[in-house]
Amino acid sequence: MKAVWLENQKLELKTDLPLPELQAGEARVKVLRAGICNTDLELLRGYYPYRGVLGHEFVGVVENGPENLVNRRVVGEINAACGDCRFCRQGVPTHCENRTVLGIVNRHGAFAQYLSLPIENLHLIPDNVDTDVATFTEPVAAALEIQKQVKIGPNDRVLVVGDGKLGQLVAQTLALSGCELLAIGRHREKLDLLAARGIQTGFEEAAIARSFDVSVECTGNPQGFEVARRALRPRGTLVLKSTYAGRLEIDASAIVVDELTLVGSRCGPFPEAIAVLAGDRIDVKPLIQAHYPLDEAIAAFDRAQTRGVLKVLLDIN
Amino acid sequence: MKAVWLENQKLELKTDLPLPELQAGEARVKVLRAGICNTDLELLRGYYPYRGVLGHEFVGVVENGPENLVNRRVVGEINAACGDCRFCRQGVPTHCENRTVLGIVNRHGAFAQYLSLPIENLHLIPDNVDTDVATFTEPVAAALEIQKQVKIGPNDRVLVVGDGKLGQLVAQTLALSGCELLAIGRHREKLDLLAARGIQTGFEEAAIARSFDVSVECTGNPQGFEVARRALRPRGTLVLKSTYAGRLEIDASAIVVDELTLVGSRCGPFPEAIAVLAGDRIDVKPLIQAHYPLDEAIAAFDRAQTRGVLKVLLDIN
Ligand SMILES: [Zn+2]
Ligand SMILES: [Zn+2]
Ligand SMILES: [Zn+2]
Ligand SMILES: [Zn+2]
Repeated sequence: MKAVWLENQKLELKTDLPLPELQAGEARVKVLRAGICNTDLELLRGYYPYRGVLGHEFVGVVENGPENLVNRRVVGEINAACGDCRFCRQGVPTHCENRTVLGIVNRHGAFAQYLSLPIENLHLIPDNVDTDVATFTEPVAAALEIQKQVKIGPNDRVLVVGDGKLGQLVAQTLALSGCELLAIGRHREKLDLLAARGIQTGFEEAAIARSFDVSVECTGNPQGFEVARRALRPRGTLVLKSTYAGRLEIDASAIVVDELTLVGSRCGPFPEAIAVLAGDRIDVKPLIQAHYPLDEAIAAFDRAQTRGVLKVLLDIN
Repeated sequence: MKAVWLENQKLELKTDLPLPELQAGEARVKVLRAGICNTDLELLRGYYPYRGVLGHEFVGVVENGPENLVNRRVVGEINAACGDCRFCRQGVPTHCENRTVLGIVNRHGAFAQYLSLPIENLHLIPDNVDTDVATFTEPVAAALEIQKQVKIGPNDRVLVVGDGKLGQLVAQTLALSGCELLAIGRHREKLDLLAARGIQTGFEEAAIARSFDVSVECTGNPQGFEVARRALRPRGTLVLKSTYAGRLEIDASAIVVDELTLVGSRCGPFPEAIAVLAGDRIDVKPLIQAHYPLDEAIAAFDRAQTRGVLKVLLDIN
């Protein structure tokens, strides 16, 4: 099969890969569409070691699996757990010690004609959700996770730092809570996408120091972290939603003196994400800036890495 | 009056200072005993700007104040709030924007014959609590604050990193929760003080990676932070209890990937601390390693700064 292969910080379009192996309890999925995400770009830059087929945001059709799924469109949770380690037994399979992660850790990913995942990872997509939109299920779930970790309601002042792919979804999903929301970034045209949804937006100086109950860092750079921290009132909560290249230098004394809470946040609930997309409660279409066929995946990556570009999708089958 | 004056990272015993001014609503307290704490040593090293009388852990007798307090032994909360700013109105006076802090920010401290504090900051000491023991009220309150911020029960595995003054009180108060507790440090003789209380202790290697629900960093150094982080299971909570000289470099991606929570923790509840001391539920006496009269305060500081020394007390009046 064809697939985008990552090795030594180089991408290659391979055409002769075998179909992914099917372990017991796994289904084979024919990939329809896949999204390029910042994690893919970080893997490409070598921030984390990985060798294999890249990609983890996808919509596909089940080709080999249980009857109720075959020939139907699905999305898939990316962590495949062992079911047996201490974390699996404690009910947190997303932190399984032996987990593989689609296109990230020890499991070939979604920028390929076929992928395999445990059957329990798959979720059906309702007919009214189009395939482009459903491709956002994984990042929307990750954005919704914030509200699982931190109670946010209409009385909370919440700041989103960053207007990129992640910030866009985080701001749109936080807006659903009815909180008093401000999204800040550096690109007027990206902020305008949020403003069009009725979200208050601004540049950095719009975030008044020491006045937010919750801030969400979506930039992945140290300046973004500082902005998010300074915006918090004493006893406020900073949600770390993006990973960082290298180490992050923080003012730990400020965290102690202001009694701040920092919360690391990663994967989220797929069923809620599908419901949000099916209910048209957020609008992901304006984030899609280009479609490329799998054959032009290398060009798609070039485009995705261009400053200011939001979502690039690959049309695969 | 006599007092220990800090200016430009130098200590001086002054003998001719005026009595501290009494603002409306304040009481004058004749200081009986005071404790030298790490914050005092950090102020002396110039980590924070401060010029004035040092000291914030004390027991005194009210000399000028309301009838129910005069001539009685008290301890005092160290933050004096304005009562009027947004944080005071939000019910978090310990974060008052205009606050003064006894011996730390804009308010002369407790290493003096007299100090002044708002009347509402003062708490009576029960007769059965001796003055040496009551001097620990402020740091015991700070240790108890952890359990206000993080729910800790008998099913939680908790790690305390650091066997100094702070770690000793944190470990002893956490033990009251019935949690499964391990205290680690680098000094066998200090760990033995905790072992004598029935607390499990060990050196760094005793803290098995990824196995604690909660870890409390009490060393104030970056290695201590790393040990506390690595010990946490996914979704665990790291309590930052000590301030840090300069900035702290952290692996923010690990915090995101493991979905850890970091909680900064500072001042705590005096009434609970007094109850814990009055009920003999912890034992602070073994931490006291020397008494010095106020006249020998400079020597007392030298002693307090000696490696391995726990609490040094000043006998003042
Ligand atoms: Zn992604
Ligand atoms: Zn597992
Ligand atoms: Zn102190
Ligand atoms: Zn105030």
